[in-house]
Amino acid sequence: MAQVYERVALIGLGLIASSMFWAMKRSGLAGEITGYARSAETRDTAREIGLCDRVCDTMAEAVEGADLVVLCVPVGVMGAVAAELAPALKTGCTLTDVGSVKADVIAQVSPHLPEGVHFIPGHPLAGTEHSGPRSGFAELFDNRWCLLVPVEGTAPEAVAQLRSLWEGMGANVEEMDAEHHDLVLAVTSHTPHLIAYTMVGVADDLRRVTDSEVVKYSAAGFRDFTRIAASDPTMWRDVFLSNKDATLEILGRFTEELFALQRAIRRGDGDHLHAYFTRTRAIRRGIIEAGQDTAAPDFGRSAKK
Amino acid sequence: MAQVYERVALIGLGLIASSMFWAMKRSGLAGEITGYARSAETRDTAREIGLCDRVCDTMAEAVEGADLVVLCVPVGVMGAVAAELAPALKTGCTLTDVGSVKADVIAQVSPHLPEGVHFIPGHPLAGTEHSGPRSGFAELFDNRWCLLVPVEGTAPEAVAQLRSLWEGMGANVEEMDAEHHDLVLAVTSHTPHLIAYTMVGVADDLRRVTDSEVVKYSAAGFRDFTRIAASDPTMWRDVFLSNKDATLEILGRFTEELFALQRAIRRGDGDHLHAYFTRTRAIRRGIIEAGQDTAAPDFGRSAKK
Repeated sequence: MAQVYERVALIGLGLIASSMFWAMKRSGLAGEITGYARSAETRDTAREIGLCDRVCDTMAEAVEGADLVVLCVPVGVMGAVAAELAPALKTGCTLTDVGSVKADVIAQVSPHLPEGVHFIPGHPLAGTEHSGPRSGFAELFDNRWCLLVPVEGTAPEAVAQLRSLWEGMGANVEEMDAEHHDLVLAVTSHTPHLIAYTMVGVADDLRRVTDSEVVKYSAAGFRDFTRIAASDPTMWRDVFLSNKDATLEILGRFTEELFALQRAIRRGDGDHLHAYFTRTRAIRRGIIEAGQDTAAPDFGRSAKK
Repeated sequence: MAQVYERVALIGLGLIASSMFWAMKRSGLAGEITGYARSAETRDTAREIGLCDRVCDTMAEAVEGADLVVLCVPVGVMGAVAAELAPALKTGCTLTDVGSVKADVIAQVSPHLPEGVHFIPGHPLAGTEHSGPRSGFAELFDNRWCLLVPVEGTAPEAVAQLRSLWEGMGANVEEMDAEHHDLVLAVTSHTPHLIAYTMVGVADDLRRVTDSEVVKYSAAGFRDFTRIAASDPTMWRDVFLSNKDATLEILGRFTEELFALQRAIRRGDGDHLHAYFTRTRAIRRGIIEAGQDTAAPDFGRSAKK
């Protein structure tokens, strides 16, 4: 594949940044890729495993001369990081991010943008429950969605170039506005994560069911929740605080539905339950047909096969 | 492996029964295996795919002369099925079941038990979101738990024999009492399923986020919920109705925790969220160490690798 950017700087070296590095290398999408992480330990690890062509000890050094700068830091510090690196940005470069929330990131970053820099917020819908510089792999974005949220007036060529990069890393790219993005993600990701965290916390708190029992007998349902609830705590704290309104709205809706099902159980209303469960089953089929999962009856047991 | 029972009868031919058949055949654990399903269509399918050595058109015929009879029907009809087949049970045979709830099944089945029949309730903690006679596979129980819930006074030899069968099918066997079983499963399986069903239902109801968006962008979190929420509606309706008390108790606990997290989001209490998410992450590690899942960072993408 052809090179898309001459110089790319990755700010923050966790799961997403490290996967971007390996994905860009896989297809030769960038000339030189620099990297910066706030912690010296992370920078040492990156150097040890060959993550980035050049790991820099300052943000300014990493960003200097870059055609694309990618903010791969928790949503809560996007503004502070943007403020720090803004003076070092090259005129004409593109600044993007990979945060799970978009309206809040735009509000944080915009005040610090120098003239002549294209800011194109982004969000790859891909991840695992692992974090840190060692957790990345080149295939993370293959056949996953990356949502771009260009603000009004952004140069179309700059958007097209960033789109090419994500497509080169294997992703399918779509554009939407920030508010809609935040609502869609509250439904498909943020609220499910909060619920999984809650359920796992409940199990941990119960004293009549021992920890070892919860762990041992987790095969049927609970295990999938723990997988979700093992994701990075800092990232998720920031997601909920910065997508507060949409998350609280969907949570309110969720509670309402849950109370209706709870009432059906209490009253023994089997018809209500059966109809509800039949409807949700159909949604699963839609996801399999859309190619976002397989129908393989493995429930996470794949490693054994 | 040595034969454990000379004749086994499977009543109900869905995911669990068909997996038991293939698992018993894999290791030669039974002489002849008969099968019965209420629906003629299911019996035809079973004959077509070679499920069971002999598919019978009546329950009495399937059960006749069997040393082990396994009830693989929804929890809600266990009593009615037991009443119908009781007169055909051979003296000295073992009757077991695979239902997800135990106290209620014992209450339903016990009144119909003839003298000289060993009733040993059981529950394999294994499943997929698929159902029906074609969904079974021999490996379903490998390294999964099977919980036996013998009632007081059951002959130890009969329990040991049933344990051998499950171990022969790949499962790890433990014994516990019915009330404790129902509480443990309410925590690890029943409530998580209800919550997953609820969340998927909420997403489906929202009109501002289109169905196709929910389906397309389901990679991060929601997809795992839809997998859970695609399980058999009849089975799950019966589970919630028959494990009502424990499920409602855990649901109450869940709601309490959820409201505390919701309040933390509303008030911007990041420390509370971070501490909670850090604690749940540790539980996931315990599950991986216990061998009930792998650490592979695949989030269900295994089929692609």
